[in-house]
Amino acid sequence: MLRLFRRRRRRSRTAAPTITPRSEGLAAVRVELAELTPAAEPFLGQAGYLLLVLFENLGRAVALAPTTAAKTTLSRAAAQVLEAHEGLVTELLSSGADPVAAMDPFRQPLDEYQRRIEGNDWAEILVTCYLTTGFLTDFFVGVAGGLPPGLADRVALLLDVDRAEQVLEGELRSLIEQNPRMASRLAMWGRRLIGDTMLVARSALVAAPGADGPQLDRIEPVFTELIGAHTRRMDALGLTA
Amino acid sequence: MLRLFRRRRRRSRTAAPTITPRSEGLAAVRVELAELTPAAEPFLGQAGYLLLVLFENLGRAVALAPTTAAKTTLSRAAAQVLEAHEGLVTELLSSGADPVAAMDPFRQPLDEYQRRIEGNDWAEILVTCYLTTGFLTDFFVGVAGGLPPGLADRVALLLDVDRAEQVLEGELRSLIEQNPRMASRLAMWGRRLIGDTMLVARSALVAAPGADGPQLDRIEPVFTELIGAHTRRMDALGLTA
Repeated sequence: MLRLFRRRRRRSRTAAPTITPRSEGLAAVRVELAELTPAAEPFLGQAGYLLLVLFENLGRAVALAPTTAAKTTLSRAAAQVLEAHEGLVTELLSSGADPVAAMDPFRQPLDEYQRRIEGNDWAEILVTCYLTTGFLTDFFVGVAGGLPPGLADRVALLLDVDRAEQVLEGELRSLIEQNPRMASRLAMWGRRLIGDTMLVARSALVAAPGADGPQLDRIEPVFTELIGAHTRRMDALGLTA
Repeated sequence: MLRLFRRRRRRSRTAAPTITPRSEGLAAVRVELAELTPAAEPFLGQAGYLLLVLFENLGRAVALAPTTAAKTTLSRAAAQVLEAHEGLVTELLSSGADPVAAMDPFRQPLDEYQRRIEGNDWAEILVTCYLTTGFLTDFFVGVAGGLPPGLADRVALLLDVDRAEQVLEGELRSLIEQNPRMASRLAMWGRRLIGDTMLVARSALVAAPGADGPQLDRIEPVFTELIGAHTRRMDALGLTA
């Protein structure tokens, strides 16, 4: 499997990093989205607040994890997401922006998104973390391609977080094996999640200067790739996307 | 105010660090507790798991924070607690121990502790984070004094986390000002918390080899100092300890 995104290895002291196989098609996402990238400040503000939302979900997963091993692996993923958040806050500060003011316009819609996707039990929380962290970080790495070159690279590196996909997948597979009737409920939950997640992704682009109908048409093949990656995640659980 | 513990400054790029004034008496805690320190592996296992518990509480505070500013400050504290957890896991690995096996014996009692202290609303969660993070990290820094010298220093540095005390205190003061009748409920909550927290602290020492009655008597002055720091935190909120 080609590895088209750089992986950080900083955490390799404490455990083997989770290597996420990513498709060739996702490389194209980066190119396609670059032209629809908003200005640096709203991009960093939205991505910065979004990472807090992804963190909240991982934090709930840490709290509910039934074993020490799952808890500590998920906490590593949560830590990387917070580190990425802080990295974006640092970028805002060094550009002279007020990080709180940059994030604030995205608070209400992203809090609303979080409430919709947070899930009601351990299984739903796992599905949320598993599906949304990958989708949204892939997407925002793609959008970051349109930022000024140095910033684009730093942001792509920050957003290349450990998604703990292996542990999430393992926990979910064992839940579904123990209770196969859970599969249809989780498949439905996954579909609802991804609908809400695509709306959040789109909203990042609508803010782009000059974005209009024809430009937005260009997003469709991008979403096709992201949904392909999403479908592979669902397949790995034996669920229908 | 003397600063008797080293403060990490790694986060100073993103914001002024929260400087926690610590009393002279707390320096003595380190000396007094050193002789009651358990072996490295159970110490690191218990402290490692405990940091996950402190993190869970901070994670809940991040999720419920009503402003972007509070959210991002609390997330910084949560990130440092997770970093400290990872640092202890790294120490366990480099000593040849299995981190999960080292933490596991502490899971059940510390999960039970977490359930007792997690709090039912934003105010109680804030009080929990405010009171327990300081008490327990002071205490474990004290106990770490008895570890082999190099390890003792590294652990003390790891446990010297940002406790976000300023933001927690600010949020709590404004809640109490808006609703003064809340004060007695929160004072009672604080007393209950600290009772449970002292039991957790004591349990770290009972495991020490050779710990017996007379040795445990030596803990009393130590707790007197820790409770002094606790009382100052309560005073800062205008609450009776």
